[in-house]
Order: sequence, then structure tokens, then C-alpha cells
Amino acid sequence: MTDLLYFLDIFGVIVFALSGALMAGRYQLDPFGVVVLAAVTAIGGGTIRDVILGTTVFWVASPIYLYIILTTALLTIALIRRPKRIPKRFLLLADAFGLALFAVLGTAKAIKLGAPVSVAIVMGTITGVAGGMIRDVLCNVIPMILRQEIYALAAMLGGILFVFLSYFGFSENVATISAVSGALTLRLAAIYWQVSLPAFQIIDKEGNSE
Amino acid sequence: MTDLLYFLDIFGVIVFALSGALMAGRYQLDPFGVVVLAAVTAIGGGTIRDVILGTTVFWVASPIYLYIILTTALLTIALIRRPKRIPKRFLLLADAFGLALFAVLGTAKAIKLGAPVSVAIVMGTITGVAGGMIRDVLCNVIPMILRQEIYALAAMLGGILFVFLSYFGFSENVATISAVSGALTLRLAAIYWQVSLPAFQIIDKEGNSE
Amino acid sequence: MTDLLYFLDIFGVIVFALSGALMAGRYQLDPFGVVVLAAVTAIGGGTIRDVILGTTVFWVASPIYLYIILTTALLTIALIRRPKRIPKRFLLLADAFGLALFAVLGTAKAIKLGAPVSVAIVMGTITGVAGGMIRDVLCNVIPMILRQEIYALAAMLGGILFVFLSYFGFSENVATISAVSGALTLRLAAIYWQVSLPAFQIIDKEGNSE
Repeated sequence: MTDLLYFLDIFGVIVFALSGALMAGRYQLDPFGVVVLAAVTAIGGGTIRDVILGTTVFWVASPIYLYIILTTALLTIALIRRPKRIPKRFLLLADAFGLALFAVLGTAKAIKLGAPVSVAIVMGTITGVAGGMIRDVLCNVIPMILRQEIYALAAMLGGILFVFLSYFGFSENVATISAVSGALTLRLAAIYWQVSLPAFQIIDKEGNSE
Repeated sequence: MTDLLYFLDIFGVIVFALSGALMAGRYQLDPFGVVVLAAVTAIGGGTIRDVILGTTVFWVASPIYLYIILTTALLTIALIRRPKRIPKRFLLLADAFGLALFAVLGTAKAIKLGAPVSVAIVMGTITGVAGGMIRDVLCNVIPMILRQEIYALAAMLGGILFVFLSYFGFSENVATISAVSGALTLRLAAIYWQVSLPAFQIIDKEGNSE
Repeated sequence: MTDLLYFLDIFGVIVFALSGALMAGRYQLDPFGVVVLAAVTAIGGGTIRDVILGTTVFWVASPIYLYIILTTALLTIALIRRPKRIPKRFLLLADAFGLALFAVLGTAKAIKLGAPVSVAIVMGTITGVAGGMIRDVLCNVIPMILRQEIYALAAMLGGILFVFLSYFGFSENVATISAVSGALTLRLAAIYWQVSLPAFQIIDKEGNSE
């Protein structure tokens, strides 16, 4: 892994840990609950990816990730004194960064391990969405991915862009940054303009859903 | 795997993907949410089975499953225009087919990989029930398996029948079809007549539960 | 594994299976639902630990655990006729025993498999908390670990005590029993006096949370 990719990976862990810790603040958890929710959010997706690919789980190989999560969670508790005052948009933003980063880095890792392209894109999607999904399920909230926002699509776009750019010979750094930017732009646009794909149902002429 | 078993396996993936997509329709998810829920339902159980058995996850080895799920989900969206009008019984039916098929095929796979009989039956049960369980948890619904219907019992029956018939020398095809039929019959009977096992509680003489 | 540790391990499986079965009783599940919930609670944590560590899952290697869980669940159904009359404290107690035992034994197993200390303590925490977490998620309840009680902290303390005592040359038996006692004492004290860590939020001068 190049230095840049390593930095992006650490950054993704930090923003996802932050999103888990902020969610914990909304639910008034104690400090250890905050650490647990931060950890689950930050390493859940990558853990499932590595287990399915049958490779060594990344944080078992490099426990540094655990210390980063612990530090992020404790700093969040120390610095953010009124978690309920943090606007919800901030949580969405951290989640979007983590989603875009992990989707692309997860796809890249799967391809390096020899997975077929379709499997690699699914692995990237899992890496990007699973941590937040577990975070939401534990808090008894229907996961973001299942509500009407462009979420899984942004993750898939990131993976597809990365595969596409790598195929056309761009360097790993360029492919990664472009793909992350693309996925992030799509997700942020969806949040900002509240764009969403048409739901799987018909709206009748009077505008009532059935 | 014989041609018949391969066909049954694909059929199981299709009906579970359909059940996930129909559930997504009830919750008005966007198309990518539908694909994700279909995928989780269709491959969740088999993924957990393969990970626990320490073998290569089936859809990593054969990405064709991913395309089948994608096609099923998109066809469901295209063809079923008013998902809320689909009677709930239809979802239960698709789920019952997937349950019976996956429970038996999961048991068979575990036995082929050398697992003891008790482990193989548990593996079959996991293959049959876990996908639907994750689908229900994501939608914030208490899983079917935990409500008062003969559900896990049907899955276990399928696995036990398969082990039993194989032990008495029936061919794999015959054992599989008979076991699937048995499990499916039990589950459909439970749905049709709303049969259920007595719940783990006492009903007093006046008929009040405690 | 020494005889003592093996006995403790079995005991942990029994108390967690009991806690799952009692929870099932509160939700009036049928007997097979009870068995499933007992099994998920008893082997969920250890299964995730073994899968992440890439070692053979313990109950696949020794199916005796499955029979123990089945027996525990059936005995619970047979002997406890009015599950709703069992005080909630009893469920909390069984859960606390399982938590303390599995956290320490999980840490010990990870260390024996060569994991770094930080990873081992996380593995112990996962072993201790994940089974109960899945039980609660399936029943659509916010997991104990995320509510305001000293829960994850007790699990981590067990793992840390074990590492500490082993490092200073105490035998495995002594280290295990001391660490389990420490974790259990902390958890029981938290239940008894309803002690909890300050939640991640500020209480203003008038005592209103924000």
C-alpha cells in the first residue's frame, strides 16, 4: 500500500469511528458504549470483507487501528460536550466520507487478492456500508442504506470507477482519488439536494402512494 | 454437484432474492436498496455457513450468483409495479421455498466437507434461516424464526431427512428432493393452517397468558 | 485446556444458553425458537472470535457444545413453566456470568493463538458481548452493551486482568479465576447498585439533559 492509500485508510477509520461515536452521543451511551459503537462502525465492514475473502482480518494484522479508534472515541467524548447539539448533517458527512473511502479501498484490496471484478465491487460495497449498517441496527434504527437516499449506489459507483480507471492504466493513487471523489460527490449531492431514486412503488395520479 | 442440485441451488437463490426484493417493496426502498436487500437475503445464509466451515464462500468462487440476484431484483422492480398489492402470503411462500431448499443443500454441503452430522444439520439450518433473519433485522422486524410459526423446525427437519435418507443409501438427488419436499410441506402446512407449536409459557384456565 | 478451564467454558455456554432461553420465554417463542435463541446467545460470540482469528470454529471442532445447548434449552422449557414470572434480575445474572467467563476465556484463546495483547482483549470482549448482542438485536431490543450500564467495561477488565496476571507469572487457572471474579464483581456491582458511568452528554445545572 502506498503512503497515500495508507493515509486514506486511516482517515476512513477515523471518520467512521467519529460517526459511530456521534451516534452514541445521541443515544447517551456511557464511554465504553461509545468506544464499542465507534469500533463496530469503523472496522465492521472491513472485517466482513476480510472474513469473506478468507484473508487475515486487517486489524488483527495491524492492531494500530484499534488504538486509532480508541483515541478517536475518547477525543470525541472529551471535545464534544453536547453531542445532541451536533447537527445531524455532521454525522451524515462523516458517514459519507467513510462510505466513499472504504468502498474504493475495499474494491482495491479485493482485486489485489485476486477476486473477480464483480466480487471486488460487492466487497467494496460491503466494506463501505456494513459498518454503518451494524451501527444503525445496534441502535435500533433502519439502516441508511435502506432509506430513500442514494447510498449503496454511491458505494458501487466508487468501486466501478476504480475498476474502470485501473483498467485504462491510471496509477493506483489517481484511480483511488478519482473514484473516492466521484462516490463522495454523488453521496454529498444526494444529501445536499435530498435527491433520491424513485422508490420501488407507483405513485398514482393524485400523488398518493399505494 | 449434479445438474439437478445446481438447478435447485440457483432456484433457491432466485426465490430468496425475490423475497428480499418484495420486502424492500413494502418499505419503499430505492432500486439499490432493493438489490442490497435481495442480495443479503439470498446469500446471507450460505455466506455464514461457508465462513464458519472455513471454505471458500460460494459466491466468491462463482460470481454468477451475483448476476442472478441483480437480474432477479431488477426484474422484480420492472414487473411488479405495485409491491404493496402483492399479498403477504406470496412473500411467505417465496421464503418457505428458499428455507426448505437451502436447509437441505446447506446440510449436504457441510457433510461433503466432512462435518459431523450434528454440525451439518446446524449448518443447514443456518443456511436456510440466516438470510431471512438478516433481511428482517435490517427492516427492523422481529425475524420470522422468532415468531410463533413452525420455521426453524422445518429447516431442521429438512436436514435430518437428508441425513437419514443418505444414510439408508438413497441417491443424493432422491434424498435432496424428498428432504426438500418434507421441509416445504411442513412449512406450508404451518402457514396454511396457521399451525404453531405451543409457546414457551402457560395459558391459565381462563385462557389468559401470563 | 485444563479440566478447570474446560468446565468453566461449558458452564459459560450453559448460562448464556439459559439467558437466551429465558429471553425467548419473555417473547413467547415456540420451542424451536427457544433453541435457536439459546444457541445464538451461547455460541455467537465465540463463533465470531474464531472466524476473525481464522481458526476452526469451536463448535464445529467439538459438536458436544450443540448438545449442551439443546439440553439446556429443553430443560429450561420443561422446568420453567412461567417464564414471564422469572424476575428480570435472573436473566441479568445469567448474562453477567456468561459475559465474565467468555471475556476471559476468549482473551486466553486469542493469546494462545498468537494474537497481540490489544487484539486479544478485543477478542475477549467480542466473545463476551457478541452473543448477547445478537440475542437482543433479534428480539428488537437495544443491546445491553449500549445502554447505561457497566457492561463492555466489565468484559475488557476481565481480559486486561487475565493478561496482567499471566504476565506476572500466575498459572493459567489462577489468572482465569481471578480475572473472571474481577469482571463478574464489577458487573454484578453495576447491576446491584445500578452504578453506571456518566453518559456522553452534559447535564446542565438544573439537572436537565440536553
